[in-house]
Amino acid sequence: MEKKKVAVLGASGYTGSELIRFLLTHPNVEITHLTAEKHAGRMISDVFPHFGGFLDLELKPLRPKSIPKNIDVIFAALPHGTSAAVIEQLYDRDVKIIDLGADFRISSKNYKKWYGQHPCPALIKKAVYGIVELNREKIKKAKLVANPGCYPTSSILGLAPAVKHKLADESSIIIDSKSGVSGAGRSPSLDYHFSEVNEGVKAYKVGDHRHMPEIEEALSNYSGLNVNVSFTPHLIPMDRGILSTIYVNLKKKLTTKKLINIYKEHYKREKFVRISEEMSYPSTNQVRGSNFCDIGIKVNSSGTRAVIVSVIDNLVKGASGQAVQNMNLMLGYDELTGIDATPVFP
Amino acid sequence: MEKKKVAVLGASGYTGSELIRFLLTHPNVEITHLTAEKHAGRMISDVFPHFGGFLDLELKPLRPKSIPKNIDVIFAALPHGTSAAVIEQLYDRDVKIIDLGADFRISSKNYKKWYGQHPCPALIKKAVYGIVELNREKIKKAKLVANPGCYPTSSILGLAPAVKHKLADESSIIIDSKSGVSGAGRSPSLDYHFSEVNEGVKAYKVGDHRHMPEIEEALSNYSGLNVNVSFTPHLIPMDRGILSTIYVNLKKKLTTKKLINIYKEHYKREKFVRISEEMSYPSTNQVRGSNFCDIGIKVNSSGTRAVIVSVIDNLVKGASGQAVQNMNLMLGYDELTGIDATPVFP
Amino acid sequence: MEKKKVAVLGASGYTGSELIRFLLTHPNVEITHLTAEKHAGRMISDVFPHFGGFLDLELKPLRPKSIPKNIDVIFAALPHGTSAAVIEQLYDRDVKIIDLGADFRISSKNYKKWYGQHPCPALIKKAVYGIVELNREKIKKAKLVANPGCYPTSSILGLAPAVKHKLADESSIIIDSKSGVSGAGRSPSLDYHFSEVNEGVKAYKVGDHRHMPEIEEALSNYSGLNVNVSFTPHLIPMDRGILSTIYVNLKKKLTTKKLINIYKEHYKREKFVRISEEMSYPSTNQVRGSNFCDIGIKVNSSGTRAVIVSVIDNLVKGASGQAVQNMNLMLGYDELTGIDATPVFP
Amino acid sequence: MEKKKVAVLGASGYTGSELIRFLLTHPNVEITHLTAEKHAGRMISDVFPHFGGFLDLELKPLRPKSIPKNIDVIFAALPHGTSAAVIEQLYDRDVKIIDLGADFRISSKNYKKWYGQHPCPALIKKAVYGIVELNREKIKKAKLVANPGCYPTSSILGLAPAVKHKLADESSIIIDSKSGVSGAGRSPSLDYHFSEVNEGVKAYKVGDHRHMPEIEEALSNYSGLNVNVSFTPHLIPMDRGILSTIYVNLKKKLTTKKLINIYKEHYKREKFVRISEEMSYPSTNQVRGSNFCDIGIKVNSSGTRAVIVSVIDNLVKGASGQAVQNMNLMLGYDELTGIDATPVFP
Repeated sequence: MEKKKVAVLGASGYTGSELIRFLLTHPNVEITHLTAEKHAGRMISDVFPHFGGFLDLELKPLRPKSIPKNIDVIFAALPHGTSAAVIEQLYDRDVKIIDLGADFRISSKNYKKWYGQHPCPALIKKAVYGIVELNREKIKKAKLVANPGCYPTSSILGLAPAVKHKLADESSIIIDSKSGVSGAGRSPSLDYHFSEVNEGVKAYKVGDHRHMPEIEEALSNYSGLNVNVSFTPHLIPMDRGILSTIYVNLKKKLTTKKLINIYKEHYKREKFVRISEEMSYPSTNQVRGSNFCDIGIKVNSSGTRAVIVSVIDNLVKGASGQAVQNMNLMLGYDELTGIDATPVFP
Repeated sequence: MEKKKVAVLGASGYTGSELIRFLLTHPNVEITHLTAEKHAGRMISDVFPHFGGFLDLELKPLRPKSIPKNIDVIFAALPHGTSAAVIEQLYDRDVKIIDLGADFRISSKNYKKWYGQHPCPALIKKAVYGIVELNREKIKKAKLVANPGCYPTSSILGLAPAVKHKLADESSIIIDSKSGVSGAGRSPSLDYHFSEVNEGVKAYKVGDHRHMPEIEEALSNYSGLNVNVSFTPHLIPMDRGILSTIYVNLKKKLTTKKLINIYKEHYKREKFVRISEEMSYPSTNQVRGSNFCDIGIKVNSSGTRAVIVSVIDNLVKGASGQAVQNMNLMLGYDELTGIDATPVFP
Repeated sequence: MEKKKVAVLGASGYTGSELIRFLLTHPNVEITHLTAEKHAGRMISDVFPHFGGFLDLELKPLRPKSIPKNIDVIFAALPHGTSAAVIEQLYDRDVKIIDLGADFRISSKNYKKWYGQHPCPALIKKAVYGIVELNREKIKKAKLVANPGCYPTSSILGLAPAVKHKLADESSIIIDSKSGVSGAGRSPSLDYHFSEVNEGVKAYKVGDHRHMPEIEEALSNYSGLNVNVSFTPHLIPMDRGILSTIYVNLKKKLTTKKLINIYKEHYKREKFVRISEEMSYPSTNQVRGSNFCDIGIKVNSSGTRAVIVSVIDNLVKGASGQAVQNMNLMLGYDELTGIDATPVFP
Repeated sequence: MEKKKVAVLGASGYTGSELIRFLLTHPNVEITHLTAEKHAGRMISDVFPHFGGFLDLELKPLRPKSIPKNIDVIFAALPHGTSAAVIEQLYDRDVKIIDLGADFRISSKNYKKWYGQHPCPALIKKAVYGIVELNREKIKKAKLVANPGCYPTSSILGLAPAVKHKLADESSIIIDSKSGVSGAGRSPSLDYHFSEVNEGVKAYKVGDHRHMPEIEEALSNYSGLNVNVSFTPHLIPMDRGILSTIYVNLKKKLTTKKLINIYKEHYKREKFVRISEEMSYPSTNQVRGSNFCDIGIKVNSSGTRAVIVSVIDNLVKGASGQAVQNMNLMLGYDELTGIDATPVFP
């Protein structure tokens, strides 16, 4: 079978490089086109020395019209706004598109409020929100998938069973997320300068982060409820990983054991979701480099409030691994192809 | 004026060494007795090379009767249970005692539930809970002070104004705390082995941590309310620092600005509490090595829920710095003596 | 083709778990037996949660006679001394053995000096030193391979071309190595307790490390010279990676460009050695998780002294990856099978 | 006694902030003027929140003529070239000047080669190189002190006794230095972006670093020999600290014990140099936050080569602490004033 040809737009960031890492091991595809604005003209292995010997491609400037017609799949890892503008020009091609940015994740109304005017709001409705465990069948038929954000992926997978089965009071949800620094991207700034971030923890954009409406929309669509969340992101001095600690009031009393069993049942056919046993809570380092979402659960002694701990690798299940998972579905491959390796610990 | 003579029981841990660091710069005291079970017989500068040239004392085994009679102040940084048993033997001396362990922080009822049988429950009532900003006057007259735990210090200072002024729904409180690894002490174990902890975040003892009843008792005593909290501690790959993100439902609607002003007013005479301006949230690295508690505040747009971010250095305001602050009060010194240095950043 | 059956003795350490990681992706083998003294009776995915869902095996106590007869390949990741004693009992079986410990790496004379009495010195001569790039043909025929130490691997690969081509003064060699903490293993001790190691660099066993004779023997055997080295290991606050900075006086004057070309020529058929271009020096993070050794080179302006910078992942090329590479040769598989993934960055 | 008035030019970098930290605790001086180009107009406690409550000063743009005439001491923490141009305009004032940059550290000939044309070469000869342990008497009388670089400080103190007493072959010296990231300053760049630096070690500017001629000049001047060094700096994933591992061939055979005794004797009156006992080597974390240089020593078994391990805090003894030490000498204060605190560990 001929390999599908893949382009990665925005290949010089961490999301782009992680996409390349997975695509290189994928038996059904080959990377044939890479773009990067700042580094255009350089070889990918010059920008990322770890790829030395693996991929001999030059980074091209981002010009939609210069993307070869024979490309079968386009991954866009671009700044918001840019992404939509580029995808609008490519949409009519015979191509599958997976956008790793924010442009097609939320309704145009929310987009306007949180990001500003959308370049092509009509296209938003054609996109499928690519959280596989909730939207698998739609993704299989999609031409354009909006790959979820990293915080939303950990939050939505942690909450989906609780809201779907109407166990959680949907107005009580508090999500306290902790992210490694790679989630902030690869553009230098004082905020992510080593000595500013190392040996410290901080909260940022408290109640103001753009991933909040994304979480609310996805969970509301999935459950039929009107889900509201309080969301606080924190920056942690480590490269990779997101841990979301989620607090929900329960509509009826439950034990830890019961809630764990509900989660296990809910996710029993999912290969990338692992539920921890009672009294055990996952660390981000047990999913590092992999596409897993591991979830630990505790209900308080009165049975009225649950604490759900959900961990992912922000660059994998929170970005590039999930993007490949989406591609696999869109192209009819086994969902695990290319992303089935074990986590890397330590 | 003659210097007061000080003993540190349990000098080979991080709390002990941090006590020594502050006491060495304190103009009114001198360290004359150190104990450490495991390292007895070694010099303190052998166990902690950073003290080379500062303190030429041998570590003694922990024998209450061998503690010289001329000691004026005893700091106990010992395992729970041990601490109470030792202090019971020393209590009748003419000495001030500051216990950095858990043995005198909570009621005997709660102690029994969370720690087990107390060796000398009668003594608990004689102890004053040493969180200065809440109990200053009692501490001044105390003979025995129970120095607060690290998580409770950050939580209590973050919540005190909100519960005292009856702003927070006392049944809605969620405390999500993140701690550096030094909080777990200096005894080797797989849990704190470098490669297990580094590059990962995890929650532990979810809803089961012994600091939960300590927080509840202190805030209930202070406010007259029956305060209940959900408490989740997390381990962060850094040496020092605790950040507590605290979520409370508000009894009446407030704006961020108003709540900040209430906090500023509440703490206006406190040298060691700093309230951040609106839209600004503290990082643990801005209090590192110092006795400060910095607090940032955000109320959601509907005015119904507040997020309070409180940071301390777990070894300083969360342990040894606060212990010296207590000593200063108990001995009638200026409260800031010996602990007034700036934080160390980066 | 039926898969070969593999046993890992000492599966609960980092070397063991990294072996499992690679063997799980290897198409020609299956893991059927794991041992671990301390954790015997537990499931491997209980000891290493990152393996959840990948391997459903119980850890057995280490009993040579209990290792099933149908095992084709044995990896021993055991303490020195123990390893030799166990292998002696297994040697007569129809099995390939790869020892990741120190017991068969050096001559019995040096072993006695640096480690003590060897349990079965006669077996040492039957073992092949498993640094593939130097000993490939011998390894193909070996029954017992002594997998090199992590420091020696980075040092030997960095020095091999210079000593083989008689460019380096063999009495002038200085090796200054920096290692991540996983190289010290997974047994808790104060030396590797998080807060002792983090935010610090230190040298240890200066001139006294057991890897020094291993480096000297391997390079002497390879070059026919009598190679002597000064070796200083350092501990770096990171999980993985070794960087060795090697200083040699040159027997005749060279330029950086010439020396780089000699190295490129020497290693031109090696898939796992990459030589950096002039003015570029590798970071350990560009080989993380992979079997690569990347080498950067600089000759001083007078052409008399070379600085060679060699990086590996200590757990992969420095241990488990190289062990799989050895297995591939011993079993006649393509040398890259199972260890051909890209590095994981960041 | 009236306090001396101090200005810090370039106060928004790590060197500037560390100067402020020490000057705030210094009983004889007060900070009255701060400059910072990028952050001019902001309050210092806005740029560095850890200073909140300590210093209520606005950062001014760098205008030599706007520096108040009543300033007694000027610290310049500015880019090279800028520093000399500014100091030239201030030199004729009745003021003591301590330059923390490179402009007055080396001869004009070397400056031209390594940095480019010097703005005021005549002034170089008037400056005293401010490594106190070598140049104390000259510093006492100096008007302008060139504060040493961080790498040179650790290297020179590690080598001074060996070259002064003609023990080391001055052509054999190899310095392998490892630095925390704060040494690279506070300007954001990809090289020091968290995820690029974390979990990796790399060498840079191998044999090409500007601190090499500084080390050579200082040691040559001190010993009367023509000292040449090979110098390789490395970047370590930690905030603070430099460890230099120094290799020298010995002119006559020595034991470790003898060499340690020579170092102890040489430094016996120095408060900020501590020599480790045999078999003990310092970690950078035992000097963190302090003005100490700790030195460990090992001679090989044949007595022909010494390894000297020298650690400092790059921001303190390697920059701001030493600058205050210089100020103390220039103003006739006790040399330890304001910089006598213990290290901060962990």
